[in-house]
Amino acid sequence: MIAAKVRDSIWSTRKADSLVGLKFMLVEVLGGIEAGRLMIAADTIGAGNGERVLVCTGSSARKMLGREDVPIDAAIIGIIDEDCKL
Amino acid sequence: MIAAKVRDSIWSTRKADSLVGLKFMLVEVLGGIEAGRLMIAADTIGAGNGERVLVCTGSSARKMLGREDVPIDAAIIGIIDEDCKL
Amino acid sequence: MIAAKVRDSIWSTRKADSLVGLKFMLVEVLGGIEAGRLMIAADTIGAGNGERVLVCTGSSARKMLGREDVPIDAAIIGIIDEDCKL
Amino acid sequence: MIAAKVRDSIWSTRKADSLVGLKFMLVEVLGGIEAGRLMIAADTIGAGNGERVLVCTGSSARKMLGREDVPIDAAIIGIIDEDCKL
Amino acid sequence: MIAAKVRDSIWSTRKADSLVGLKFMLVEVLGGIEAGRLMIAADTIGAGNGERVLVCTGSSARKMLGREDVPIDAAIIGIIDEDCKL
Repeated sequence: MIAAKVRDSIWSTRKADSLVGLKFMLVEVLGGIEAGRLMIAADTIGAGNGERVLVCTGSSARKMLGREDVPIDAAIIGIIDEDCKL
Repeated sequence: MIAAKVRDSIWSTRKADSLVGLKFMLVEVLGGIEAGRLMIAADTIGAGNGERVLVCTGSSARKMLGREDVPIDAAIIGIIDEDCKL
Repeated sequence: MIAAKVRDSIWSTRKADSLVGLKFMLVEVLGGIEAGRLMIAADTIGAGNGERVLVCTGSSARKMLGREDVPIDAAIIGIIDEDCKL
Repeated sequence: MIAAKVRDSIWSTRKADSLVGLKFMLVEVLGGIEAGRLMIAADTIGAGNGERVLVCTGSSARKMLGREDVPIDAAIIGIIDEDCKL
Repeated sequence: MIAAKVRDSIWSTRKADSLVGLKFMLVEVLGGIEAGRLMIAADTIGAGNGERVLVCTGSSARKMLGREDVPIDAAIIGIIDEDCKL
């Protein structure tokens, strides 16, 4: 997983049918030599702008949705506690 | 997923049989430290040159086609709304 | 796999139900041109801060938990012996 | 997928039994910030030195062989048409 | 796949039970813009220090072991012939 900060919501009206109802967030990788890399992750736990999140990538991201048919390669799996240093 | 801009179509006459009829687009990663990375993604939703798209990579890209037998590792899954800032 | 050093624990109170009880560690890639890249890995073998570990990524990380339903893309699979040079 | 140029054949006499009869090509990523990255891809469509090819990576590369038991993570899936600009 | 040079053996006494008996090698990526990246790969074909090898990554690496339960994301699949230029 990577630690990232939520920057914004991403809206897509024309998209795959299987994605309808899914929320997408633009996140920015925090720390290390990949700091500043941008990704778009599906969010099912209600992460807000500015929050630090755990992002899971690859086939494992589909496990977050509990559906195998969704073309998703990144998902927010948790909000990092505020008092947690990175 | 990554946000990318469609640059061009890519044509391949000699290719795997399972790819016949599939459209390939050259896309360029937008924003962050990976801006400018090029990828080729399968397109089934009719993305046009210059449009900003969501690209899904890895095994999840195959889910976009609804077929497990296709050697595809990237697919356009949505068009990013025009008023959406990145 | 990559060799990494454990830097800290990462706490997430709001997270996917399937992750409850799982321990997350912030690890830093050791050596080579990716030295300093940060990752967050699930830990089931009790790695401590400062220890050097083997981290497995991608779908194979789920094999470490013996469960296919967990949205995990990195796991500590071993502690590197102290007298082992890197 | 990535666009790459075929540089050379790679020979391996001592290899996994499941790879016997498979052809390996050294390819170099074309264009963008990853230009110059080298990969070795399995080739089943007869790509020649100097040709520009589409390379599929990850689990999807195995789909090119139609066998799930082969330890292959990259495969040439098509030859890019000569008049296609990149 | 990537071409890499074997640098050393890596020993891990405390590790996942499923890894017992498996040999791990530190390998360094050869050539291109990723030259010098370090990885740790499982070895079942007896690669020696200094030899150039083909390394397969991701879920396909598990195919090298013929077991789906092993948390391995990189495996040596062949020794590159000595007279083969890279």
